[in-house]
Amino acid sequence: MRAVIFTGGRIEDYEPLKKYVKQEDLIICADSGIHHALKMGVIPHLVVGDMDSVTEEDRGKICEYNIKLYTFPKEKDFTDTELALEAALKKGVREAVLLGGLGDRPDHSLANIFLMVNFKKKGIDLMLAGVNWEMFIIDGVREIEGKRGQILSLIPLTPEVRGIKTAGLYYPLRGETIPMGASRGISNVFTEDRAVVKVEQGLLLAVKVLGC
Amino acid sequence: MRAVIFTGGRIEDYEPLKKYVKQEDLIICADSGIHHALKMGVIPHLVVGDMDSVTEEDRGKICEYNIKLYTFPKEKDFTDTELALEAALKKGVREAVLLGGLGDRPDHSLANIFLMVNFKKKGIDLMLAGVNWEMFIIDGVREIEGKRGQILSLIPLTPEVRGIKTAGLYYPLRGETIPMGASRGISNVFTEDRAVVKVEQGLLLAVKVLGC
Repeated sequence: MRAVIFTGGRIEDYEPLKKYVKQEDLIICADSGIHHALKMGVIPHLVVGDMDSVTEEDRGKICEYNIKLYTFPKEKDFTDTELALEAALKKGVREAVLLGGLGDRPDHSLANIFLMVNFKKKGIDLMLAGVNWEMFIIDGVREIEGKRGQILSLIPLTPEVRGIKTAGLYYPLRGETIPMGASRGISNVFTEDRAVVKVEQGLLLAVKVLGC
Repeated sequence: MRAVIFTGGRIEDYEPLKKYVKQEDLIICADSGIHHALKMGVIPHLVVGDMDSVTEEDRGKICEYNIKLYTFPKEKDFTDTELALEAALKKGVREAVLLGGLGDRPDHSLANIFLMVNFKKKGIDLMLAGVNWEMFIIDGVREIEGKRGQILSLIPLTPEVRGIKTAGLYYPLRGETIPMGASRGISNVFTEDRAVVKVEQGLLLAVKVLGC
């Protein structure tokens, strides 16, 4: 099953994100993420969190629409977004998109990005998406749809990523190892409508910039 | 020597960042980072980059103030910010603050964050700072100044971080291992004006949120 998770980061424009929400998706909101869902015209199936950032108005909507609610204490070892993903996992979700994952709190943004690593191990293929970007993890072979001229950045998330091979990108990699922190993989460019990235060992974060 | 590096991300307010720039600091700008420096009233010693995002007006200022310029081709294996840090390293810099490191391009923001890992190995203790946050790497013992109630998030940057011990934080860690992607270390809170974080193995990213 596929899920869309809304969380409480920044969403500047709802229209370009509507494409990520499909009729059959399970919609889960992490706490104030419900605000984004309702603004986008999406009624969630479930809201998960400590409710510390949900407005009175949105609480009213939770009652009005009879939305299921899993509440947790404020003092806990997990962020609301991690709890939302745990709930998704229990419901059999194997693929998910997180909307509102980046925002003004850089620690929250980073925690949301690293949730992709956490839940890849647990069995959810998680993608984060914003108005003009998408990000996801590559740990084997991945075909990536794009447009000629669009930017694709490849960022190591392990101390090193070995044996990176690419096709369909302007700056080809031919089995190179990139250590964490090297900017070598930043701002590669699609030369076709499809790229292939293969990794022998390690985790790569791919960021596709849609606006270019 | 200490350096302040300006890069081209988002800076919403210059005033709170002035405290990071000291009279004796070496000031280096990565490409359009010069715009931020000049807006803050700081004349850099050096501008490094491919000049693809520097405005005509700022180019004029580079001439007017006789600022040293290292130019590089647009097609290269390094971001302008990495090149700026390499220049700092060659000049003997061992401690640096990066301003304007986060912005609208999440791939650039992440690349800048991971530069802290890269340059720690090379010998620069790099910190990123924004209007209401600071981030830095912990790979041993670190004393961190703060204020009671301020948030300190601890985020693993290696597959796992072992033996984390804390003092002066509301949610103490007593030798725990946190794997990458677990949100356990997010939103810890200073209970005193100083915290100590000790790591036995691995790299932790610390994010201090100044506003809370």
